[in-house]
Amino acid sequence: MEYPSKAIKDAVDELASLPGIGRKTALRLALHILKKTEEEAERLGTSIVSLRKNIQYCTSCHNISDDALCNICNNNRRNTQLICVVEDTKDVIALESTAQFNGLYHVLGGLVNPLQGIGPGQLNIDSLIERVKEQDAKEVIFAFSANIEGDTTAFYITKKLKNLGVRISNIARGIPVGMDLEFTDEITLARSLINRTVVE
Amino acid sequence: MEYPSKAIKDAVDELASLPGIGRKTALRLALHILKKTEEEAERLGTSIVSLRKNIQYCTSCHNISDDALCNICNNNRRNTQLICVVEDTKDVIALESTAQFNGLYHVLGGLVNPLQGIGPGQLNIDSLIERVKEQDAKEVIFAFSANIEGDTTAFYITKKLKNLGVRISNIARGIPVGMDLEFTDEITLARSLINRTVVE
Repeated sequence: MEYPSKAIKDAVDELASLPGIGRKTALRLALHILKKTEEEAERLGTSIVSLRKNIQYCTSCHNISDDALCNICNNNRRNTQLICVVEDTKDVIALESTAQFNGLYHVLGGLVNPLQGIGPGQLNIDSLIERVKEQDAKEVIFAFSANIEGDTTAFYITKKLKNLGVRISNIARGIPVGMDLEFTDEITLARSLINRTVVE
Repeated sequence: MEYPSKAIKDAVDELASLPGIGRKTALRLALHILKKTEEEAERLGTSIVSLRKNIQYCTSCHNISDDALCNICNNNRRNTQLICVVEDTKDVIALESTAQFNGLYHVLGGLVNPLQGIGPGQLNIDSLIERVKEQDAKEVIFAFSANIEGDTTAFYITKKLKNLGVRISNIARGIPVGMDLEFTDEITLARSLINRTVVE
């Protein structure tokens, strides 16, 4: 594809580096940015630069935070003996929106993924082990996506936690609420049979 | 949704202002930007700001351009008596990639769309009429998307050009190449019947 100007080519190159944005979408976004005022475009560009430049992480749970300790770790009504381990901030936001969890989180910053060259050493696992000891945690909950990377990560951390006398659990896999049984894949269906819950 | 820091909320707000990007996607993009180096994030942000700030348009066809006259208008092997009218730069790029058109373009900068408050006065229509006279154009081709806005715009410009003795045409509507007849909607099918081309 030949672009009519260098400024637009540069912007398309950069926007297309974002996940899920191909070159056609990038061009559409660039043309949309041209319809904004200069101030609006400036605000968009600056928000990206300052996001990366000014980002801070909670020193305890590694979630994104404005302060050294995030709002959740700083909340003394939270149960510090219950730690929910997640991949990243998206998952904290998703779980918090359920209003069903009263413990703390631990953000790994990724999942073990040998194909992408992400080993356990690059994730916040050592600090999790430290926290389990320091906070005298009673239970560690794995809340990972239901895929190979999630299972591998859970398996690795389970081994590390084995001798600490902490209960380890996984969020339930099963049929999503609202989903038709006939459209559920067989692996999910099999798991939902094995992990059936007793009604009475 | 509650965000863990102001920097991330600002970035999500801004990214979600782009077309086709909701707040969940914006959050995914923001978390991806956090995994970039500071230089990469800076380059992305700057490309957006400078795109809007340094953009120039061709003084003749209004396409995006690095100079006062774009590469296409500046090419003296192009047929200046053939003008293809399009909505925006995306369409110029799409048509150029066919390598089937040897005339010049005229970029309107939008289509007539009363619902969005875009009237003919906001589009580059007057300059098109001027160009048709100046370049002594023999044919004006409308290459708009096949929707109400495209048809309205074509109808309006046709009236304006009526007394200039220039041939006016529309790109063909019909079954896309590779498309199965049974899956084509009835309006397209009806048009493709009416506008059938003689084989022998």
